[in-house]
Amino acid sequence: MDTPSMSLQRLTALRALMASQPTKLAAYIVPTADAHNSEYIAAADARREWISGFTGSAGTAVVTASQALVWTDGRYYTQFEKEADMALWTLMKQSLPDTPSMESWLSTNLSEGDVVGVDPHTMTREEWTPLQTTLTRSKMKLLPVASNLVDAARSQLSDPPPRRPCNQVVALPIKYTGKTAGEKIKELRKKIAEKKTSALVVTALDEVAYILNLRGSDIDYNPVFFAYLVITPASSILFWSSGSLPDTVTEQLKEEGVKIEVKPYSNIVPYLQELAKNEAAGSGRAVWLSNEASEAIHRAASGSDVLNQPLTLISEVSPVALMKLVKKEVELEGFRNCHIRDGIAVVRFLRWLHEQVDDGQAVTEIQAADKLLEFRKEEDDFMGPSFETIAGAGANGAIIHYSPSRTGPQRTIHQQDMFLLDSGGQYKDGTTDITRTRMMNRSPSPEQRDAFTRVLKGQIAVGSALFPLGVKGNVLDSFARKSLWDVGLDYAHGTGHGVGHYLNVHEGPSGISWRPYPHDPGMKPGHILSNEPGFYKVDEYGIRHEDLVEIVAITKESDHPRAKNLVGDYDGRGVLGFSTLTMVPHQRECIDAAMLDDLELSYINNYHKRVLSTLGPKLKERGLVQDLEWLERECQPIVRG
Amino acid sequence: MDTPSMSLQRLTALRALMASQPTKLAAYIVPTADAHNSEYIAAADARREWISGFTGSAGTAVVTASQALVWTDGRYYTQFEKEADMALWTLMKQSLPDTPSMESWLSTNLSEGDVVGVDPHTMTREEWTPLQTTLTRSKMKLLPVASNLVDAARSQLSDPPPRRPCNQVVALPIKYTGKTAGEKIKELRKKIAEKKTSALVVTALDEVAYILNLRGSDIDYNPVFFAYLVITPASSILFWSSGSLPDTVTEQLKEEGVKIEVKPYSNIVPYLQELAKNEAAGSGRAVWLSNEASEAIHRAASGSDVLNQPLTLISEVSPVALMKLVKKEVELEGFRNCHIRDGIAVVRFLRWLHEQVDDGQAVTEIQAADKLLEFRKEEDDFMGPSFETIAGAGANGAIIHYSPSRTGPQRTIHQQDMFLLDSGGQYKDGTTDITRTRMMNRSPSPEQRDAFTRVLKGQIAVGSALFPLGVKGNVLDSFARKSLWDVGLDYAHGTGHGVGHYLNVHEGPSGISWRPYPHDPGMKPGHILSNEPGFYKVDEYGIRHEDLVEIVAITKESDHPRAKNLVGDYDGRGVLGFSTLTMVPHQRECIDAAMLDDLELSYINNYHKRVLSTLGPKLKERGLVQDLEWLERECQPIVRG
Repeated sequence: MDTPSMSLQRLTALRALMASQPTKLAAYIVPTADAHNSEYIAAADARREWISGFTGSAGTAVVTASQALVWTDGRYYTQFEKEADMALWTLMKQSLPDTPSMESWLSTNLSEGDVVGVDPHTMTREEWTPLQTTLTRSKMKLLPVASNLVDAARSQLSDPPPRRPCNQVVALPIKYTGKTAGEKIKELRKKIAEKKTSALVVTALDEVAYILNLRGSDIDYNPVFFAYLVITPASSILFWSSGSLPDTVTEQLKEEGVKIEVKPYSNIVPYLQELAKNEAAGSGRAVWLSNEASEAIHRAASGSDVLNQPLTLISEVSPVALMKLVKKEVELEGFRNCHIRDGIAVVRFLRWLHEQVDDGQAVTEIQAADKLLEFRKEEDDFMGPSFETIAGAGANGAIIHYSPSRTGPQRTIHQQDMFLLDSGGQYKDGTTDITRTRMMNRSPSPEQRDAFTRVLKGQIAVGSALFPLGVKGNVLDSFARKSLWDVGLDYAHGTGHGVGHYLNVHEGPSGISWRPYPHDPGMKPGHILSNEPGFYKVDEYGIRHEDLVEIVAITKESDHPRAKNLVGDYDGRGVLGFSTLTMVPHQRECIDAAMLDDLELSYINNYHKRVLSTLGPKLKERGLVQDLEWLERECQPIVRG
Repeated sequence: MDTPSMSLQRLTALRALMASQPTKLAAYIVPTADAHNSEYIAAADARREWISGFTGSAGTAVVTASQALVWTDGRYYTQFEKEADMALWTLMKQSLPDTPSMESWLSTNLSEGDVVGVDPHTMTREEWTPLQTTLTRSKMKLLPVASNLVDAARSQLSDPPPRRPCNQVVALPIKYTGKTAGEKIKELRKKIAEKKTSALVVTALDEVAYILNLRGSDIDYNPVFFAYLVITPASSILFWSSGSLPDTVTEQLKEEGVKIEVKPYSNIVPYLQELAKNEAAGSGRAVWLSNEASEAIHRAASGSDVLNQPLTLISEVSPVALMKLVKKEVELEGFRNCHIRDGIAVVRFLRWLHEQVDDGQAVTEIQAADKLLEFRKEEDDFMGPSFETIAGAGANGAIIHYSPSRTGPQRTIHQQDMFLLDSGGQYKDGTTDITRTRMMNRSPSPEQRDAFTRVLKGQIAVGSALFPLGVKGNVLDSFARKSLWDVGLDYAHGTGHGVGHYLNVHEGPSGISWRPYPHDPGMKPGHILSNEPGFYKVDEYGIRHEDLVEIVAITKESDHPRAKNLVGDYDGRGVLGFSTLTMVPHQRECIDAAMLDDLELSYINNYHKRVLSTLGPKLKERGLVQDLEWLERECQPIVRG
């Protein structure tokens, strides 16, 4: 936590810069995002954190001459009040219906003629446009401020932002990706020709990594590197900070049929402006970019600061995102394989944890997370965690985005704790994300058993569902909630997210939620989703069951619990269902078999049978006899009373 | 059907007008909509029908110098090919994934510099903007053509459009509406003040009728009248064609605290232009209108044809639509009461129909619909059907938007037919919409029984669901489909629509569908929805079960099958469920009790018990002994095995 005087100093520096701009700013907005709309950001981009002290992963700060506010959601209210200097900062609880949105707060609290500034690299066009509309309606102006004022304030206070990382980039061989970079670019060029566009500008870091079959480590947990990629009918230009690419990378790209031109990262804006000028003078074709590209990139690509008549743009869901969404068979095979190895690591950890706690050893949440990482490191092709491990004992399990801190008092996992463990691994052949909930003493209360079983019923309802090809993931959300809704319970998060292949653990544009995913192109075989209902009793315990699932086509002959009952294929649209990738049993003592119908009971027993028959031989092979014995006990059939 | 030479003559006349415009039109678009975006239209507005011959309720015609096309959906492919001259017209099957959208067809098939014309009264701003964007990107132009070219072509061919109806307007007393027009306008003026807007422009016909507590008959089935209503902080101006309002209407409006100024219907555009000019010269406040208002009204309200710097508009979901959505207790009481009377009429009809068919009488679909209307006419406050009756025997039941024709060969309802009857009534105290499906010989095939039961399970899943206050209706859609999806079956329509109170039987902005309703403000007590899953076996039979339901708040004490199990209220958000308004039993012989779980079985038996105990005493009172006996048999408990 920053000291109060530091917080004030920072605010004062920023306010001075706002006042001294060529156009004086009545307010300055500091979003969380980096220039690539990344979910996780590098330290170089943690501007909202620096100005406010608040370290949560979501939130937007607004600073005026007299006020300083952060809009964030219910996950972070407590954390905000701990971290921010509450004498200087106001928390705007955006989950509450009565909290005005940032747009409406600005248009109500500023005066006509006022100017609101923001670094256009840190806001997407999709966010920019409605904000601009609201401010214009109130006779205010939204001004793109080219250099970041928080960075400038940091420099003034001799606390300059850390250097943007530019770590080593490595080539991911074709045996993991299944498709050469050359093939990917060829497909995109076909679309570029169909769209009659001059260039595709790829701004999302995972999309750049995906197209080129490269991986980096510039952002924790996400194996990506800071770069933009511009694909034209004749060239592929990488805007990257480290000069030329390593020889091994250039070599693989060459083998995969790609000749890449490398330019400095910071040249993207002038390059796009030049492109816009050339197009305006020539054929006038539009540039194609993602609607999640920043306002700065949109402005550059339309030439809005260099042309009297800016070019029209094609701004829509990225074709790379849509390509990446459908995993190739090689990627799917990798997902299946890494989930077996990941399952072994998690099973070994769970056995270890139960033994420690049964033995009366004091294991803290952090120690548990570290031990889990040790087990994962024993597995082939493990590259690191896919996100910060959520290891929540007792009441900490009820904090949906909890992760234990290495500093301050440490929570020990007790016999009488429910323990929620949400973790994942990056492997060269895939990405995992699993949550299991354990009652350490194996004696849940009736209420806990009821809730555990209801959450499981929800997971099975999604896992066993059949649905028409092409419907959006959101249609499945209510299945996951039904057994909870029936008794007045619910969970305050979505049911599923897309997952990248050795890329971001949260990947768009699909997902399963009551909230619409407007760019979800509809479900198809080869998509990967999480299936993770939960239940949280504040101050007591949390329950979440999370599997990753693969979407598969189902016919009467498929290995699926509902296959043999099929009498139609949705009038030719085709039947889809899920195949579960995750390989770790659920705790039998927490399941009330009397609450399961026949299909649910056989579903969970078949799943446990599959986990044992898949992991068992591997454990045996590796001489992990005690782990195997433990797994056998955990996978015994559940029978009704 | 028009003769081929008539069709060609009409097209030729329109093409000549397109060529002779001040700016020559390469294409002219003829949408289905009237100037109020009404779902059902008056004959005066049936322009697409006149030019193409196609009478379906949905579709958009595009005419170029050499081509003529209609985009419509799967409901109408067969009908289109029957009605349109296929030598002149091309059917664009918009439900097929490979059919280009109208936007993309225009931008591909016309040339740079071409101009596309449309009457801006017949297209909403929400439709106009994306079309304009697409055409601009292809260097084409979308031109608002002030006078309608189809109307002009009609006049040239001495077949002028019928006069716009301007039938009698009547006042609906407070005992039916529960809220005076004065109170409604006062509430809207409060919102007008909060929005700092100069005026609210009400363009939807049902919204005008709702605010003023007036009803008309200008459009079949919808008790509305052609008018616009402009509410300013100090005045209420009705743009209406018939001169002054009848004295009884003026009297009620006065009693309800409203002084109304009446101006000619056609003055709306110049009035709004004048208002825009005044605002531009004065305070510069924005006009507030619905995003479903036409492009013509948007242009007028922003002053875009009369100002150099058009005003910003507030264009969003109509506040009247949101007000109307939550029914007052008086309106709800009316809904409950009219459903009892409507139930009596439908029960009497079903008994009559079974008797006729059992007796070997030849009853046609049209005769059945007419007989049903006779029974409804016997009920108090009945004002007419709420839509054209869908009476489909056998294969006709599988045509989702079928309605029997009075001309041509007539289909008789046979013993071996499944018979699908979807109908509704307008009553002064509410609107009904009910579908029941009957197997005339009471001996469904195993497949029919299975499908009938699955559709019923879907209806019960929605009818018995509990869900958090404020979630959107679309979250319930999958519940209705689950029992069908589980075996590869589905239905090609939504599950529920909003219903007006003695107004339009289809009322936005809410509904239950896999398709998002973007303006659904979330479910609240007092909304009325339909609950109507179905199943259609093409060329054989159709099944649909449709009830209207009222959204009610549920606590542990409520009369709801899940109330006693409640252990939470969704963390304070509040629990909602449904109360079924419709009062007609489902056919017992078609229900396979073995497929119902305990809750479903007791749900259907309780429903039948409630139908009998509600309608029974009324039938008895009215001496309808045979109807009562029939109902008693139909409502007997269903038992398993």
